[in-house]
Amino acid sequence: MTEVIFEPGRQDIIIKREFDAPRDVVFQAFTNPELIPRWWGARRFTTTVEWMDVRHGGKWRFVSRNNEDGNEYAFRGVYHDVVAPSGTVFTFEFEHGGPGYLQLVTESFEEVDGRTQYVQVSLFQSVEDRDGWIPTDMDRGIRESMDLLADLIAGS
Amino acid sequence: MTEVIFEPGRQDIIIKREFDAPRDVVFQAFTNPELIPRWWGARRFTTTVEWMDVRHGGKWRFVSRNNEDGNEYAFRGVYHDVVAPSGTVFTFEFEHGGPGYLQLVTESFEEVDGRTQYVQVSLFQSVEDRDGWIPTDMDRGIRESMDLLADLIAGS
Repeated sequence: MTEVIFEPGRQDIIIKREFDAPRDVVFQAFTNPELIPRWWGARRFTTTVEWMDVRHGGKWRFVSRNNEDGNEYAFRGVYHDVVAPSGTVFTFEFEHGGPGYLQLVTESFEEVDGRTQYVQVSLFQSVEDRDGWIPTDMDRGIRESMDLLADLIAGS
Repeated sequence: MTEVIFEPGRQDIIIKREFDAPRDVVFQAFTNPELIPRWWGARRFTTTVEWMDVRHGGKWRFVSRNNEDGNEYAFRGVYHDVVAPSGTVFTFEFEHGGPGYLQLVTESFEEVDGRTQYVQVSLFQSVEDRDGWIPTDMDRGIRESMDLLADLIAGS
């Protein structure tokens, strides 16, 4: 089960998910460019990885195409910390702008009894930016993405 | 006069300073690599600019040497937005680690009657990171840096 936490007055969105696998496997699944198209953007989008250089200073860029209307959306950022398999820190930019276009994302992977607790904190430039960014069905997309990734990990 | 604002429970440090010059002049002064050594790190440090590529995706890296003990400290980051002369967004990394080693910095320059109001918001990964980062004389260093920059701008 995925928790998506928006606390009032805070400027972050926190996602928590437990995966039934050791953390080196989960970390690999999150950071493998070949697997991104299978879970990122859930089923509604087809995502192409343009760059994904998972190391300090490395850049990433994904393009997601809406399967219904064909519209494309691009996202990019820079890795500021990569400590396998315990965590990453990277920036997340929505290239098309708007409130919340830029986030500082911190991911952590903790292993307990062979299972992995994944926590992602997406920090926005302000509370207003975070609140302005929340589309009504974002929760659904995140939960679906995390479910797809859990299926991938279970099958790997 | 420079305001340095730490509000309890928040995860940012806000710096405000008015400069007696139009904002294109002030923006130039902040983003000119040749001027950095004259104000960055105040008088206590001698700062060398290794890279400073002020454009979207451009990297920067400064090395500051303590004039008393000769110890060197390195800082770097990536520009995520540069809209001259109204503002910049960049990451700020202290390469030697520790709480608060990473900040997302948003600078804005607003002109009113030929004077410029500069606001810098340095956002930390958590409240704890911000609180852990505040050294006792940080305020003094910031105020001195801003005064040096104001003198530079007044003389330019």
